[in-house]
Amino acid sequence: MKREIEVFDYAGEILKALKRGVLLTTKVGGKVNSMTIGWGTLGIEWGRPVFIAFVREGRYTRELLDQSPEFTVNVPVGGFDKKILGFCGSKSGRNIDKVKELGLTLEAGEVVSVPAVKELPLTLECKVIYKQLQDKNAIPEDIKKAMYPEGVGSDEPMANGDYHVAYYGEIVKAYIVE
Amino acid sequence: MKREIEVFDYAGEILKALKRGVLLTTKVGGKVNSMTIGWGTLGIEWGRPVFIAFVREGRYTRELLDQSPEFTVNVPVGGFDKKILGFCGSKSGRNIDKVKELGLTLEAGEVVSVPAVKELPLTLECKVIYKQLQDKNAIPEDIKKAMYPEGVGSDEPMANGDYHVAYYGEIVKAYIVE
Repeated sequence: MKREIEVFDYAGEILKALKRGVLLTTKVGGKVNSMTIGWGTLGIEWGRPVFIAFVREGRYTRELLDQSPEFTVNVPVGGFDKKILGFCGSKSGRNIDKVKELGLTLEAGEVVSVPAVKELPLTLECKVIYKQLQDKNAIPEDIKKAMYPEGVGSDEPMANGDYHVAYYGEIVKAYIVE
Repeated sequence: MKREIEVFDYAGEILKALKRGVLLTTKVGGKVNSMTIGWGTLGIEWGRPVFIAFVREGRYTRELLDQSPEFTVNVPVGGFDKKILGFCGSKSGRNIDKVKELGLTLEAGEVVSVPAVKELPLTLECKVIYKQLQDKNAIPEDIKKAMYPEGVGSDEPMANGDYHVAYYGEIVKAYIVE
C-alpha cells in the first residue's frame, strides 16, 4: 500500500533525515542500486517540485543516473536503520548487490522505473530534468580543502577532482509505503 | 525581538510559502532592495544548510548579489501580504525604492549586512558560498520554450537568453522577527 502525500508537508522530516542519511536509488537494466546521501535540497524550480541530489563524478550512482535518469529518494519515518544507511554509504554497488546483501524490500515505482525501498518508507519518485557539474573554480577554498583534497589516490571517495554533479530531479510522485 | 529557530523545523512553511512568493532582499551600499521569488530550494550541501535562489541574469537583484554576496529570505508567517509580494514581484528596484514605497520595516541582520523585513517575519540570513549560471544546453526543450522564449524584446523579464543563476546561500542565521 502506498499513501500519497504532499511532499512539502514532509519537508522538515526529509531535510532533518538528510543529516543522518537517506537513500538514493537508481536502476539500470535489471540492476537496482542504493546509495546513502547526506546532501540534497528540496524546493521549486521552473514551477516544478524538485529534489536536487549532489553526486560525485566518480560514483557508480553517477554512471547509473547518466544511463537512466530517474531516481527514488527513500527517507526513514519514525526512526532510522543505521545498518542500511551505514552499508549503503560505505560500499560501492560496482562490487556488490546491496539490495540482495541487505535483503531490502523493493516496491515498484508508480511513475518511474526505479523502485521504492520499503524499509525507508517515505518515497520521492524523481525524473532528472537537469544536471550540471559544479564548477570547481567557483567553490570556496575552505570547502575545496575539506571536501576535495588533492593528492589523494583516485580510488578514494574524496579523490582528486572528484567534484559533484547536481542532479535536479522533478518529484513526480511522493508517498509513504505502508 | 528575534526568536531563533531551527530552519528545518520550518522547512514546510518556507517551501509552501514559495508557491505564493517570498522576499529575497539584498543590500549594496546603503540601498536595500527586495524581490519576490517563487523558486528556490532548501537543504544541505558541503555539510552546510543552504537556500538556493534562482535569479535571472538580467535582474537588478543579480547585479546586487554579485556586488555584495549576501541576502535574506523573508517568509510570511500565518497569512501573507499580497500587496508586498505583488509589488516586489512586478517592479524593478532599478527604477524605484520598493522599501520606501511600501513603507517596509527593516531589522538589521545579525550576521549579514542585509536586513530582515519585519512584515514577512520568518527570516533566513544567507551568505553566498557558490553561484553558477545554469547551462542552457542542458535545459529540456519544453522548459526552455515556457521559461526562456526566444524573440522577446530584451526589456522583457523573460527575455531571450535571460537564464538563471543558482545562488547557493549558506544559512548563517534563522529567526522570526516578533
